[in-house]
Amino acid sequence: MNVLGYAAPSPAGALEPFTFERRAMRPDDVLIDILYCGVCHTDLHLARNHGGFTTYPIVPGHEIIGRVSQVGEKVSRFKAGDMVGVGCMVDSCQHCKPCLIGWEQDCAEGPTFTYASLDRHDGMPTQGGYSDAIVVTEKFVLALPDRLDPAGAAPLLCAGITTWSPLHRWNVGEGSKVAVIGLGGLGHMALKLAKALGADVTLFTRSPGKEEDAFRLGADHVVLSSDPAQMASVAGRFDVIIDTVPYDHDVNPYMPTLTLEGVLVLVGYMGPLGTAVNAGGVVRGRRAITGSFIGGLAETQQMLDFCGQHGIVSDVEIISINQINQAYERMLKSDVKYRFVIDMASLKS
Amino acid sequence: MNVLGYAAPSPAGALEPFTFERRAMRPDDVLIDILYCGVCHTDLHLARNHGGFTTYPIVPGHEIIGRVSQVGEKVSRFKAGDMVGVGCMVDSCQHCKPCLIGWEQDCAEGPTFTYASLDRHDGMPTQGGYSDAIVVTEKFVLALPDRLDPAGAAPLLCAGITTWSPLHRWNVGEGSKVAVIGLGGLGHMALKLAKALGADVTLFTRSPGKEEDAFRLGADHVVLSSDPAQMASVAGRFDVIIDTVPYDHDVNPYMPTLTLEGVLVLVGYMGPLGTAVNAGGVVRGRRAITGSFIGGLAETQQMLDFCGQHGIVSDVEIISINQINQAYERMLKSDVKYRFVIDMASLKS
Repeated sequence: MNVLGYAAPSPAGALEPFTFERRAMRPDDVLIDILYCGVCHTDLHLARNHGGFTTYPIVPGHEIIGRVSQVGEKVSRFKAGDMVGVGCMVDSCQHCKPCLIGWEQDCAEGPTFTYASLDRHDGMPTQGGYSDAIVVTEKFVLALPDRLDPAGAAPLLCAGITTWSPLHRWNVGEGSKVAVIGLGGLGHMALKLAKALGADVTLFTRSPGKEEDAFRLGADHVVLSSDPAQMASVAGRFDVIIDTVPYDHDVNPYMPTLTLEGVLVLVGYMGPLGTAVNAGGVVRGRRAITGSFIGGLAETQQMLDFCGQHGIVSDVEIISINQINQAYERMLKSDVKYRFVIDMASLKS
Repeated sequence: MNVLGYAAPSPAGALEPFTFERRAMRPDDVLIDILYCGVCHTDLHLARNHGGFTTYPIVPGHEIIGRVSQVGEKVSRFKAGDMVGVGCMVDSCQHCKPCLIGWEQDCAEGPTFTYASLDRHDGMPTQGGYSDAIVVTEKFVLALPDRLDPAGAAPLLCAGITTWSPLHRWNVGEGSKVAVIGLGGLGHMALKLAKALGADVTLFTRSPGKEEDAFRLGADHVVLSSDPAQMASVAGRFDVIIDTVPYDHDVNPYMPTLTLEGVLVLVGYMGPLGTAVNAGGVVRGRRAITGSFIGGLAETQQMLDFCGQHGIVSDVEIISINQINQAYERMLKSDVKYRFVIDMASLKS
């Protein structure tokens, strides 16, 4: 079947309308009419080939909310009309140890990503959510809780699970002291989720002026990381730091703010840490530098259900698909509070 | 009281005989005639002022085995004639959170180290175990199990507890897969302890020729870290890596050899990791770079008792105190299997 989307034709080319083929429905497939798609930094990185492995044209988008229009004969969890979500992955091997424990993101054979991957059955390139419809195997489709605004829920599929997973792993709850580094798409979700989990929440930020937003989003405290006195005042305080910074940065100043056995969890950056990590920062107090990568399917459903119970969605700015190139430029300047979401109805207008 | 020891008079000066004062006995003090003292890399670093904070003269030594000769009136756990050990610390504040949970090494006010510290009561500089006697508060004196050879037991007080503590913290036992990086004073203890705990043990080494020793000390496997094929063959294998390397090194090649949520534990180095740490190495698979710093008093006694039950001591080369300067030079060339221990009787001859 042919669908309409927006694709980057080349690393430097603006995204533009693009008609492409989705696979024919398999027995375990769900066909989804896409209503909203969030805009993640990864979309921009891959559209512009920052990783060096993009093949073109590429249709980005992995924060997808839509309505089921058709299901294969073996599909049991969904029916036409259901509101659903699709995140960063659309398949995995399903038999390796990580898959069997629900860590599909760490599939030993590599998960099939929502775009810029090859389908593991037919070898077709996967294309993402900047389009009017997508076909996804049932196991990788999430149920959207009734209460949630569908546009605001779209970023939960990446920014939400990416910050939920480490909060959940490190048992954040009542009495926990959590800090979040950076107030962007990931950071604002981390504040909301940590607060809803009952934690005492601190935002680390490099620049003043973010207090009002931070407090509204769930922070109890704001610490200016450029101010040594403020940093010293939180020495030994945090059980968990969720580090959402999406570029190279110095993690050393944050280590002494962890309590004994506290963990700094990188969730926004996968490259080299150019400022030498000080081994003493982990040796003393048995602190750890660790990380977390999106999250598994069961965990993503758990996060969506939690958000449904607590009425948590992302703060979004809704755009039309023809504003996507401008949105990328604004993202590069951090000029978005806090996530762009494309209203996919605009694709037809 | 005056005691005889060996001190470094200056950063470049050879260690030489030195008479100095030990404090008068307090009610909770134990006076110990020192029989053996292990030689740790830290001794050399501080004797030569590598940290920049040494005051001279300095008497190194924090792997002390001796016999109690006198006890203060409030001492209940020891009596004259008991064989005891003293490790890296001789006091701590005893009221902060780390002290209260038995992490005296992370005392919020800083522990009093066995040498190169100031006594927290009278302000006198502490001096270490290259001497004929030492006065230590009861709480920081360890009981030596009967079965253990006293010379071989000396390095347990630093090298032993430093490697035991992370093995214990990360629940190493039957079924665990543990790797050890480096075969020196710490590394050889890590092999022995991990094996006695029931783990499947691998030694990572940069140079061939260590197989025979490694297998004898407890390794089940030896992996040449300079061989990419051997490294690939252990991808995803280890629950815990004990990294004993005492200088700057690249930790990135070891990260993919950890299983999901596996931990690389730095125990031998506190400085900057000059090769940029790749964030992806911790983000994928939720792996962690962490560390561990000696260990608390209760944990040290637990380690000694375990070694007593399993007959574990360090492989040592016993030297006379007048060989200490030569021993430092040999240590710098890793020419020791695997720890020098000074027979303190040589001080009197």
